[in-house]
Amino acid sequence: MGYQSILNDIAKEIIPLLKEGKVADYIPALANVDKYQFAMTLTLFDGTQFSVGLSDTLFSIQSISKVFSFTLALQTYGIKLYERIGVEPSGNPFNSLVQLEYEHGKPRNPFINAGAINVSDALVNHYKNPSDAYKEIEAFIRMIADDKSITYDEIVASSEMTHGFRNLALANMMKSFNNLDNDVIEVVEVYFKQCSIEMNTKMLSRSMLFLANHGVDPISGQRYVTDSRAKRINAVMLTCGHYDASGDFAFNVGLPAKSGVGGGIVAIVPKIMSIAVFSPGLNAQGNSLVGTKALELFTDKTGLSIF
Amino acid sequence: MGYQSILNDIAKEIIPLLKEGKVADYIPALANVDKYQFAMTLTLFDGTQFSVGLSDTLFSIQSISKVFSFTLALQTYGIKLYERIGVEPSGNPFNSLVQLEYEHGKPRNPFINAGAINVSDALVNHYKNPSDAYKEIEAFIRMIADDKSITYDEIVASSEMTHGFRNLALANMMKSFNNLDNDVIEVVEVYFKQCSIEMNTKMLSRSMLFLANHGVDPISGQRYVTDSRAKRINAVMLTCGHYDASGDFAFNVGLPAKSGVGGGIVAIVPKIMSIAVFSPGLNAQGNSLVGTKALELFTDKTGLSIF
Amino acid sequence: MGYQSILNDIAKEIIPLLKEGKVADYIPALANVDKYQFAMTLTLFDGTQFSVGLSDTLFSIQSISKVFSFTLALQTYGIKLYERIGVEPSGNPFNSLVQLEYEHGKPRNPFINAGAINVSDALVNHYKNPSDAYKEIEAFIRMIADDKSITYDEIVASSEMTHGFRNLALANMMKSFNNLDNDVIEVVEVYFKQCSIEMNTKMLSRSMLFLANHGVDPISGQRYVTDSRAKRINAVMLTCGHYDASGDFAFNVGLPAKSGVGGGIVAIVPKIMSIAVFSPGLNAQGNSLVGTKALELFTDKTGLSIF
Amino acid sequence: MGYQSILNDIAKEIIPLLKEGKVADYIPALANVDKYQFAMTLTLFDGTQFSVGLSDTLFSIQSISKVFSFTLALQTYGIKLYERIGVEPSGNPFNSLVQLEYEHGKPRNPFINAGAINVSDALVNHYKNPSDAYKEIEAFIRMIADDKSITYDEIVASSEMTHGFRNLALANMMKSFNNLDNDVIEVVEVYFKQCSIEMNTKMLSRSMLFLANHGVDPISGQRYVTDSRAKRINAVMLTCGHYDASGDFAFNVGLPAKSGVGGGIVAIVPKIMSIAVFSPGLNAQGNSLVGTKALELFTDKTGLSIF
Repeated sequence: MGYQSILNDIAKEIIPLLKEGKVADYIPALANVDKYQFAMTLTLFDGTQFSVGLSDTLFSIQSISKVFSFTLALQTYGIKLYERIGVEPSGNPFNSLVQLEYEHGKPRNPFINAGAINVSDALVNHYKNPSDAYKEIEAFIRMIADDKSITYDEIVASSEMTHGFRNLALANMMKSFNNLDNDVIEVVEVYFKQCSIEMNTKMLSRSMLFLANHGVDPISGQRYVTDSRAKRINAVMLTCGHYDASGDFAFNVGLPAKSGVGGGIVAIVPKIMSIAVFSPGLNAQGNSLVGTKALELFTDKTGLSIF
Repeated sequence: MGYQSILNDIAKEIIPLLKEGKVADYIPALANVDKYQFAMTLTLFDGTQFSVGLSDTLFSIQSISKVFSFTLALQTYGIKLYERIGVEPSGNPFNSLVQLEYEHGKPRNPFINAGAINVSDALVNHYKNPSDAYKEIEAFIRMIADDKSITYDEIVASSEMTHGFRNLALANMMKSFNNLDNDVIEVVEVYFKQCSIEMNTKMLSRSMLFLANHGVDPISGQRYVTDSRAKRINAVMLTCGHYDASGDFAFNVGLPAKSGVGGGIVAIVPKIMSIAVFSPGLNAQGNSLVGTKALELFTDKTGLSIF
Repeated sequence: MGYQSILNDIAKEIIPLLKEGKVADYIPALANVDKYQFAMTLTLFDGTQFSVGLSDTLFSIQSISKVFSFTLALQTYGIKLYERIGVEPSGNPFNSLVQLEYEHGKPRNPFINAGAINVSDALVNHYKNPSDAYKEIEAFIRMIADDKSITYDEIVASSEMTHGFRNLALANMMKSFNNLDNDVIEVVEVYFKQCSIEMNTKMLSRSMLFLANHGVDPISGQRYVTDSRAKRINAVMLTCGHYDASGDFAFNVGLPAKSGVGGGIVAIVPKIMSIAVFSPGLNAQGNSLVGTKALELFTDKTGLSIF
Repeated sequence: MGYQSILNDIAKEIIPLLKEGKVADYIPALANVDKYQFAMTLTLFDGTQFSVGLSDTLFSIQSISKVFSFTLALQTYGIKLYERIGVEPSGNPFNSLVQLEYEHGKPRNPFINAGAINVSDALVNHYKNPSDAYKEIEAFIRMIADDKSITYDEIVASSEMTHGFRNLALANMMKSFNNLDNDVIEVVEVYFKQCSIEMNTKMLSRSMLFLANHGVDPISGQRYVTDSRAKRINAVMLTCGHYDASGDFAFNVGLPAKSGVGGGIVAIVPKIMSIAVFSPGLNAQGNSLVGTKALELFTDKTGLSIF
């Protein structure tokens, strides 16, 4: 059965689940999103795309942006980055702050908020100021997605900022341990901007192709990170990509992937393709409920899994 | 280059590292082990084995036994097992007890000590008494390793028991939350017996082959667990198999694997082979230092990795 | 107004509150106690007693016994005792285990369960075996209460033992840090026996008189502990005597005191008297609801308070 | 022996200890203080003062200011204040953040930093803006100390602000739980200003007299807080006044007191006097080493103690 038929079948099967999720409600810009939306796109190494649903609809990529900024920081700093950020799973969310305290302000991995804020700080260091740091993240995403239109939503970004006290707490905690170099508010602004970037499933799926191909974009032939760093990023996605449901996702889907509270998930099938899915209703762990299910159905139907 | 040459090369390369590890010293039986030992065995789906080093030398499998007892419990209970044990990574070891308390006595996964003790309890329930529970674990290992000589070391087991107060604390904590059904000491004895089982790299490598083949032993053709449960076990090994170095191991080696403080590590190359390695010197996280390095060298040289 | 009139007034005022508390329900022996009971006794330095209510009714002293065992251990070990037990408040109960872990198995004070179990262990060391340790605690209480009939309730003690898994967890944790010398179960049995001792408010009030008089029983003239240690015991009662309501109790009552889940509370008015109260209905923090109120009314009416 | 002789004796006895403490070093303004300083002042109810040492030397009152702001907030809000701040001891400092998280942003008491910042926020609410809130705190201190010259040190305040990331983390955490109403930085600035107020032992001792006299200044006859609130403040000082050494201080000194990292301690002898002491060398728990010792010597020599 061809990929398009598989996607069509998945789109039918997930319909009854659309009502079950719950959209993120911590900021109005996300709370007002219609949860009866679904899109899914596969991109193969030759650039062929298969899509179903609202694959042209832009949504807030939120935590998926952490993969992009982590990649850019690895490009820039190499293994020196691990002096300030670990790569181990972090256990339940309740422990996030106590872990940060116990481990002297060093976040356990780049995909928890503290870690992603720390990555932003590293990028502000490198690009000298917050606005250039954000611009470089955006430019990097535009390049790997091969789409110059990609940018962030200002309303979402400023809305995040006025509700981001826990993130400011994490950033101040890191700074109290001398593990954050720049102004706390400026760094967190960079982080919120990158979270507010909007993409659709076609762009997202296209953008992650290099991770399925050991660091080289299979279409352009350009190398973005070394083979070894691409594997590292995939490993961190698998072990830490889904908040406190990473273990469950590893089992049920069996692919390295990263989710965001905007309802997006992007997954990698090593050596074969990249997949993006979007549906804004979230499950109890904050991952797209329908998106997770769609990926499960996909790996069940195709037998694609890294295990 | 053939597998034998690769193993020979690895054996040469790891020699300078043998002095760096530190054997487990919490019980005399392990503290007295000679750290200048190394063995590595690959088993292919047709049963062919390639070995280097002391591949006939028995060692204490310790936490590797958690894979066997978890498999047996999944066979027995199916998904009902997840009512008492989770499958999420657990964060740093410091948090183990507070997590157990915060999550009302439900261990986060079957590979932390609390989880493995809980699995023992489930098996004592099913097999009615502790001694039969242990015998069934042993019988299962003998079957999948195809070797009737496998058994446990009584001195190690009783030594564990007289130093196992933290494990007794974990077990009593679970019992206080009604998540342990049998006598605490009897359950912990089953757990310590299974940890004290002795195997060599040939046996270990042979025994895990079914996990590389989606639940079916490729040699005998016998199915031990469903396809889906085999993937689950591999996923838990990848995300939780190496204490607080699981993320690092996922990256550096890129294979589902489980280590033990006796110096053994067993790894799965899905659809291809199973690998066992032994060297008793441990790194700071309690995993075999040389064993981890040998697996890294193996995946580097062969390009085998799930990412 | 005389003390008897004050007690009579208090007895009238607390009647409407008797229905509000909730008896301890973790063991049947306590769950079956009638909550509509109240007793209060004052003992002056010349031995005069004023009582109201069921002052001859025996009840389980539970955690009040921690004052007796701590006193006995201070007599025996002096300041060496503080090598194994601290004297600082412990914060909320949720943290008890993580604190024990963070502080390497040293309990924060002798009135949390871990601390009292540790005191029992010290007494087992000194008196060579568990049964003598218990007998010495009992003998000490008989002496200071001047009543040879005092003993423990076997049903309560064995009932505690079969529900005491959290206490066994604490004891095993301390043992894993080498801060418990004897067999865990034997030590916890001593602890549960002392908790199951039965006294009435007359006995309790009489027994604590030496703490109101800087260590010397004002009736017999016998010194039980030094002036300095008596002050220490009072200070620990004030800062740690009421689980997670010690600060509230310090304010509302303003006297050093210790409560037990059996419904008893004993309080000290330095240089003047000792007071015992009993009513088995507990408030949300596990202290006698009516007993706490009765002591508040008493200090309001008399102006007696250390602040 | 008269009070002056006692003070003279204490001054002699503490000389050898002056070299042992360690001045606070987290900001230059405190790190540069000469640790070989000592002052002690008693103020009786008729206004008589006895002093020894540098009793005219101003120092940074730091956390002692928490008593003043808590008193002012109690005046203003009454028991409604306890909806946002508790009165229980907080356990070891390591747990401060996890406790704040576990208890949903409600600080355990007004003398931990989170609690004092929360008090500042309540005062900013009441007095409409940060600068008036600070001015009212200052005016209140001037009134109770009967000294219009008292003010804060701008260098210390701004120095605190540039090193106060942990306090900003606490404030942001409370705000994320909706338990902080105003701008985080503005609130923390009020808090740092009050910490930077400078007083000498004569002023400090004079200022706290009302707490020794159930809320009424015995010299002016003015009531500052109700009897009941004065007792509450004393109780909180006794149980929470000395970071993680409150239990120890309660025993060794036996008086309600509050210390600051500037080296000051103020203590209350109920119904008799107020005592202030100053010596900038701190012990391991962050309390004035010589100051604590001087208060111990004083209660030993006079027998004054609440126990």
